[in-house]
Amino acid sequence: MADEAVKYRLVAILGLGLLGGSMAKALRARGLCDGIIGWSPRESTREEALKLKLVDATVDSPEQAVAEADLVVAATPVSHIVKLIGAISKSTTNGTIVTDVGSTKRSITEAGDKHLPGRFVGSHPMAGGEKSGLAASRADLFQNAPCIITPTDATERSSSERIEKLWTDLGCRVTRMGPLEHDRLMADVSHLPHAIAAAVVAMQEERALTIAGSGFRDTTRVAAGDPQLWRDIFIDNRDAACRSIDRCVAWLRDFRTALQAGDGQKIETMLAAAAKRRAGM
Amino acid sequence: MADEAVKYRLVAILGLGLLGGSMAKALRARGLCDGIIGWSPRESTREEALKLKLVDATVDSPEQAVAEADLVVAATPVSHIVKLIGAISKSTTNGTIVTDVGSTKRSITEAGDKHLPGRFVGSHPMAGGEKSGLAASRADLFQNAPCIITPTDATERSSSERIEKLWTDLGCRVTRMGPLEHDRLMADVSHLPHAIAAAVVAMQEERALTIAGSGFRDTTRVAAGDPQLWRDIFIDNRDAACRSIDRCVAWLRDFRTALQAGDGQKIETMLAAAAKRRAGM
Repeated sequence: MADEAVKYRLVAILGLGLLGGSMAKALRARGLCDGIIGWSPRESTREEALKLKLVDATVDSPEQAVAEADLVVAATPVSHIVKLIGAISKSTTNGTIVTDVGSTKRSITEAGDKHLPGRFVGSHPMAGGEKSGLAASRADLFQNAPCIITPTDATERSSSERIEKLWTDLGCRVTRMGPLEHDRLMADVSHLPHAIAAAVVAMQEERALTIAGSGFRDTTRVAAGDPQLWRDIFIDNRDAACRSIDRCVAWLRDFRTALQAGDGQKIETMLAAAAKRRAGM
Repeated sequence: MADEAVKYRLVAILGLGLLGGSMAKALRARGLCDGIIGWSPRESTREEALKLKLVDATVDSPEQAVAEADLVVAATPVSHIVKLIGAISKSTTNGTIVTDVGSTKRSITEAGDKHLPGRFVGSHPMAGGEKSGLAASRADLFQNAPCIITPTDATERSSSERIEKLWTDLGCRVTRMGPLEHDRLMADVSHLPHAIAAAVVAMQEERALTIAGSGFRDTTRVAAGDPQLWRDIFIDNRDAACRSIDRCVAWLRDFRTALQAGDGQKIETMLAAAAKRRAGM
């Protein structure tokens, strides 16, 4: 890190699951704030966060959490973030910057631009895994992770610069793109692989699972992810996800046609193009 | 290992790639044979195998390799194994047992039953990875790997018992099933995941690859595998592979229909069934 880190006075973290919890741990570990105030819809989670000293204080409502904060991070499931942005808009002061960690960005940035104009910057740190919840959180979750931020025409330049700096200070490799492009690319690179992995697991006979090797395990690992979180993501990004599925199925249809015809040359060409690309990643 | 290992006098290994090379290393490391004679279609590979002392001798033809052997292992690509079985049938003595390591079993066991009746037992050790060739071979490749053997009605009981013992002695967990069931289950659990992984890689825009996370990497890892080896596997098992693709696409079509309708309940139910299954593996 060439630049000095930017420090916040009080960060409000709304939602204390894997990402919110890891955010709290990482902010502390890197000395990026003086204090953290936490809110979670569940009282038991708030108590756990206090007990683990992840946060300095918890409050009963998002509105209370954000009142004194100079940085707000919305870390609830995607479907909840949109409502949260509306709920807190009257309680934040003008200097407060708000971001989120949701896996989709179009609907969230629309809400941000409407309720927190200029001060909301959508973020998507691409970190996580199959485990969710506060218990799985860790201080190094964002270390070297890609993070996409999605400022819009309505975002103030100083806001997007500060959020970019925040993620850089947390150890991420930050990329900027528009929310629509984000959602389109994520449908291809994340939501489609999840649907595909679920399909491959769901269609198996019981006996097949007992002889599955490491290739099967790799290909289907993401299918173990939290079904409610993923439902939200798919529903929020359904148009782009449907287009991704269609393009993938079109490739499979070509492949199947060549296969049924016994066209070894075509099969090899299709596999070789994918192999070259994957090996180059 | 409760039982004492069964030792062979001279093992002929036909094909000295990842699996043939690892077989030689594992047989030696576990003291399962007195000598190994190797054949590979390429002279440079034969020289390399001699230099690395993987084999005690190499010969110019499969026929020469098998003449004195009491165990023959065919470890060439799937499409070549069928021809190899025909080529060596006249050169093996009656006491010689022949097996292979091919990823498909129907066409190979048909050839075995025809040319080496009673003495051929198909094997499929499920070990390997994206790397191929002699250089990637290792003595512990088969350690704890699942291995399916596919005796048929024509196989002598003593032959299948000896081959089962061989793989057990090499560290594998051995399962028996018929060649047709093997090919059907493998289409689901191995060949389909490969096609799916290739599809997901092939359909991406260049920019998407730069923001792909660990989930994408896991899901598509197998797509880097050798295109010629996989072409052979797909072509040999094309009927079963087509049926697997059809069943996977049918699931995706249901999922897409629910998605387009915004049916969150259905989406969650489909994802939850897959998540539960995958987490239980």
